[in-house]
Amino acid sequence: MGTSLNRVEEEDYSSYTNSSDFISISLEDNNNTTKTATSTSKSSSELHPVCLPPHVTTWQKLNHRLREIFFPDDPLHIFKDQSWRRKLVLAFQYVFPILRWAPHYSLSLFRSDLIAGLTIASLAIPQGISYAKLANLQPIIGLYSSFVPPIVYSVLGSSRHIGIGPVSVASLVMGTMLDGEVSHSNKKDLYLELAFTSTLFAGLFQASLGIFRLGFIIDFLSKATLIGFMAGAAVIVSLQQLKGLLGITHFTSDMELIPVLESVFNSIKEIGHLPKGVNPTSENKLYFHGPHLQLAIKTGIITGILSLTVSSLTLILKSFLTIVHGSFSRSAVNYNAGAKTIFSNIVMAATVLVTLLFLMPLFHYTPDFVLAAIIITAVVGLVDYKAALRLWKLDKLDFVACCCSFFGVLFISVQIGLAIAVGVSVFKIILHVTRPNTVVLGNIPGTQIFRSLNHYENATRVPSFLILSIESPIFFANSLYLQERISRWVRGEENRIRENNESALKCVILDMTAVTAIDTSGIDAISELKKNMDKRSLQLALVNLVGTVMEKLHQSKTLDSFRSKGLYLTVGEAVDDLSSSWKHWP
Amino acid sequence: MGTSLNRVEEEDYSSYTNSSDFISISLEDNNNTTKTATSTSKSSSELHPVCLPPHVTTWQKLNHRLREIFFPDDPLHIFKDQSWRRKLVLAFQYVFPILRWAPHYSLSLFRSDLIAGLTIASLAIPQGISYAKLANLQPIIGLYSSFVPPIVYSVLGSSRHIGIGPVSVASLVMGTMLDGEVSHSNKKDLYLELAFTSTLFAGLFQASLGIFRLGFIIDFLSKATLIGFMAGAAVIVSLQQLKGLLGITHFTSDMELIPVLESVFNSIKEIGHLPKGVNPTSENKLYFHGPHLQLAIKTGIITGILSLTVSSLTLILKSFLTIVHGSFSRSAVNYNAGAKTIFSNIVMAATVLVTLLFLMPLFHYTPDFVLAAIIITAVVGLVDYKAALRLWKLDKLDFVACCCSFFGVLFISVQIGLAIAVGVSVFKIILHVTRPNTVVLGNIPGTQIFRSLNHYENATRVPSFLILSIESPIFFANSLYLQERISRWVRGEENRIRENNESALKCVILDMTAVTAIDTSGIDAISELKKNMDKRSLQLALVNLVGTVMEKLHQSKTLDSFRSKGLYLTVGEAVDDLSSSWKHWP
Repeated sequence: MGTSLNRVEEEDYSSYTNSSDFISISLEDNNNTTKTATSTSKSSSELHPVCLPPHVTTWQKLNHRLREIFFPDDPLHIFKDQSWRRKLVLAFQYVFPILRWAPHYSLSLFRSDLIAGLTIASLAIPQGISYAKLANLQPIIGLYSSFVPPIVYSVLGSSRHIGIGPVSVASLVMGTMLDGEVSHSNKKDLYLELAFTSTLFAGLFQASLGIFRLGFIIDFLSKATLIGFMAGAAVIVSLQQLKGLLGITHFTSDMELIPVLESVFNSIKEIGHLPKGVNPTSENKLYFHGPHLQLAIKTGIITGILSLTVSSLTLILKSFLTIVHGSFSRSAVNYNAGAKTIFSNIVMAATVLVTLLFLMPLFHYTPDFVLAAIIITAVVGLVDYKAALRLWKLDKLDFVACCCSFFGVLFISVQIGLAIAVGVSVFKIILHVTRPNTVVLGNIPGTQIFRSLNHYENATRVPSFLILSIESPIFFANSLYLQERISRWVRGEENRIRENNESALKCVILDMTAVTAIDTSGIDAISELKKNMDKRSLQLALVNLVGTVMEKLHQSKTLDSFRSKGLYLTVGEAVDDLSSSWKHWP
Repeated sequence: MGTSLNRVEEEDYSSYTNSSDFISISLEDNNNTTKTATSTSKSSSELHPVCLPPHVTTWQKLNHRLREIFFPDDPLHIFKDQSWRRKLVLAFQYVFPILRWAPHYSLSLFRSDLIAGLTIASLAIPQGISYAKLANLQPIIGLYSSFVPPIVYSVLGSSRHIGIGPVSVASLVMGTMLDGEVSHSNKKDLYLELAFTSTLFAGLFQASLGIFRLGFIIDFLSKATLIGFMAGAAVIVSLQQLKGLLGITHFTSDMELIPVLESVFNSIKEIGHLPKGVNPTSENKLYFHGPHLQLAIKTGIITGILSLTVSSLTLILKSFLTIVHGSFSRSAVNYNAGAKTIFSNIVMAATVLVTLLFLMPLFHYTPDFVLAAIIITAVVGLVDYKAALRLWKLDKLDFVACCCSFFGVLFISVQIGLAIAVGVSVFKIILHVTRPNTVVLGNIPGTQIFRSLNHYENATRVPSFLILSIESPIFFANSLYLQERISRWVRGEENRIRENNESALKCVILDMTAVTAIDTSGIDAISELKKNMDKRSLQLALVNLVGTVMEKLHQSKTLDSFRSKGLYLTVGEAVDDLSSSWKHWP
């Protein structure tokens, strides 16, 4: 600390001694937690010291980063500072959320849940039958999906709003993908085996996403691309169903449409008489060997992602609470019907079970076109043209992403459409990083505030200064661009000054507030830039370096060349200090 | 403007009237370029108005964005404000840079260039022969590459430092890729045709990158991944050459190594007697039909990217001027030998031509192990372990990217190695965007400056406020994460307050300076967040919205809910205004 206390008090070097001493102090006692930044800085007129952030080990950084990637929601926070007994109770409740609400269950809650459960069941039964048709499966299998999963969910699930059951898009994708390789009409048994195996893999995939905390993979399907994807899928399904709706089945003999009524009838004859209400398990129907295993796994993963995305959208997006989306219709009905707890799911499952056991014959006479109409009604809601219009209005690139996935699904294939959707979304991010904005700042008169000249028209240029705000982290993908762009700004500013006969440019200030990260290419770019400015006899000052960026620039010794009048805490202080130092020079 | 001039002057609503009126003003006259921000704001105590950026049409935005993508260096700026005659001269000079320096050429320049040219030639000749061997081609073809391209470059090129010639890594990659499908020893003619076709495609690819201004594709090969890639390639080449170096050619009969001396001798007998110094052109050797065309195109594109990357690295990175890099050895020698103009390239080409015509027999007795030694010397310099160490020190993720490409090349294949390198680089960007930092800010005592509590230890928390800085654009890939993370910050702050018996949390301020872009998912996230905070009876204020972000939030009507005490220009003003408004309430 000796040098900083006895330091030269000459005006011209205040910034130099100030910032450089400070860096050496923090270097000397990296682990000194009681560093007194104020005491060493107070003596220098109005400048506030720029200091290095406290030292953090690589292990701490890695630990922090991994925690943010895998546990962003800090799932264990409820266990903090609890007795071990309470922790045990909480852990049980964490795994079995039913333990949370079951003890407080009352008759009035039951009444609401009963009504809600019956209401969703009335929607779930025809939907189950229709969605089974989308997946080229027997209707009864669709009903099982509205019977077993809700019961499991009522024990393990946590959201009372979600109505559990098959997802139309996932059913369609499974049907299309499997049928492409194995015909559902010619090889019925193999097709059924593949369908069972796919759903098993979908479940395994979803479970492993949960266990390994990889849910963030789903973030990569942006809402914009999903809107396009859903709309494309809806158009395809509707076109397929038009045949049924118009009763032109005799026209499509080679398409081999399943006569749904017949299969309903058959299935009643085959597994309709359930022994004591429990149907035979289907583990012997799984397909683990042979040439189609890869197809089953691929189908499983894609449908797994799709159904997860649809339900996470249901949970999170506000559109769920304000607009009744077709895709989330079951959940929306559940919500509107006033479900109070997850028990509504149990009511629904019981209703479906009763249907399976006793009411199946009633569906005997459901005509093909009724099923088609149900499907079309369900999927037409997926064409959310209002949302697409909103995208066009707000974000043209989001709209392009939406269109890409829409036409991808429509004209190429469901999987390719999905891949395009993800690709466009990622490309959007890359594009933003590759060509970041650089903004010229001006002073808002009478203040120490500096804002974009373009945005705030009362902001004015500071003579002899070019103040640029870099609006992105500096990475390999933009380090060359930023160097070129900054040179261009300097060139443009010098031209402007020459034309207007203003005082010559002396200093370029980079506001680094938005440069929240830097890599080695970025570090090289900064020191290249410094050299370039030195060659043009221009001063270069960096303002408000973020902790990690500052640390890296320091470690790479790039910061050394900025110690003399090169590092400031705010743009205002940089302008004041630099312009006052020029007054002392000829 | 009427409402804003006659507005209510009550203290409690100053911010509301201030910001909301301002927005409605800019809405009414979007194209009003003389908007007087100061005149309407001065009356409200110390608050500075937050206003919408001037309106920009979609077409203007698209135009700007495309220009930044394709013309970041503003290549036509030299033509600005020139007479049409001068423009013509400049255009000729732009296409043929030789016109720029040739008129001023002098004898003293020639002397420097002569020495430099002869020096590089002495390096280029053995290098040409050796690199031809890497590509499994006859040595004489390697020499042509040091004869024709330098002449072309001296007319069309612009950098006097670059020494033109084959690139070792590109030669190796071509050799490996082609030989994997067509053996160079069994099918000599087909192999030669494919090699010619590949180089043609490499050239076409590079030219089209230039014409369509797609050079930014190369930015995606980060320096870190290239260090790993080069080192991996160097190890492979060295291992291959060890056989030659140790003279164990009898050991490798089934590897079918070309006896280089023999081919040197053969080539003199075959195309060595050049008719009047001009060799027959090879357009009849091109391969445009048949099963291997795809291979030739793929090889061409990959080698094209590689050689372009190596030479752009030569031109731009500082390592060129400070350290003599092995990979850029020719350019480095050219630079060190004192080349003054591009004419040094012509001298070199002439020297190589003389060698081709008269001195070839001298190379007759160059032993195999000498060539192997040349190759190993050249490529060992590619293993830049110091650069790798620097990566480890500065940026662990860059080091991982470097290792991935190194081991990818070494253990899988050159193309896969390259693909992994690009993949890891892109993944790095995505990771940064998916899990951005959120930083708690505190006040630096006695100032209006707010900085990270963690970085600046003299910064102190402001009671009743939680001030967060979001350090990334808000995209679909992080919108859910940020919502969760901010809730977690609020929860943590409330716990901390409870433990320390401090005054209750009343307001969350988001410093949006680093949120340089937002998409539709991000917009939804902000309005979700607002609702969440409303539910917890916490105020939410946004500070320093960047132009584009502000515009989108306004268009989507999200900004409406922030009009009352929700939008500020600086954190300091937000804190002052909000806390003074609380004093008036019970």
